[in-house]
Amino acid sequence: MQKSGAGLVKNNSEVEKMPMEGGAAIRWLITHKDGAPNFSMRLITVPRGSNTPFHSHDYEHEIYVIDGKLEVTIGDTKKQASRDDFIYIPPNVHHGMKAMEDMKIICVVPIKAAKEILGE
Amino acid sequence: MQKSGAGLVKNNSEVEKMPMEGGAAIRWLITHKDGAPNFSMRLITVPRGSNTPFHSHDYEHEIYVIDGKLEVTIGDTKKQASRDDFIYIPPNVHHGMKAMEDMKIICVVPIKAAKEILGE
Repeated sequence: MQKSGAGLVKNNSEVEKMPMEGGAAIRWLITHKDGAPNFSMRLITVPRGSNTPFHSHDYEHEIYVIDGKLEVTIGDTKKQASRDDFIYIPPNVHHGMKAMEDMKIICVVPIKAAKEILGE
Repeated sequence: MQKSGAGLVKNNSEVEKMPMEGGAAIRWLITHKDGAPNFSMRLITVPRGSNTPFHSHDYEHEIYVIDGKLEVTIGDTKKQASRDDFIYIPPNVHHGMKAMEDMKIICVVPIKAAKEILGE
């Protein structure tokens, strides 16, 4: 990743793809390492039949579905989502996603999550 | 918009489309009015040949290009971007986008911007 006062324009394929539990993969597109002060944009891909981990943490997700179909569990509720749907997952609520078709989502988190997971 | 401790799953077409200067339009998908504490996800569409306003403000943008082609100006630099590219625009840098083809982007801002623009 690249730090620049003049901003950043890149393709997602230029960013390292990191495996997640459950079969998903994540690219941290924009983080504090790029100078972002408040929140971090990630791209998550999940092949059909795989899932993101079912877990909970003290920060929220704001998600946009770029492609594919998925079932999202938020607390006790399961819902379907697909291309051009968006999802808000509040802090401290258990959640996970299963890909019904190959799926690609943007998932934004507070910068503190990026620092915890990637280091300062 | 809907406030829910159990989260939110919606299609972007369910959110009001508001005109912007220059020919663009914006949907504020997730804001403080939905309970989001830290940042706000918006969907911006710009028809070919139109643009977003060239302006500056004290907060950053994190952008993902869902569809289309655009020319983004960040300070003195112009770059092309298209589907699956991402853009970081730091605070206090003049910026604007021109659609070379009909374009659709996700643009995330701090929640303070949402409060300033939409009200508390």
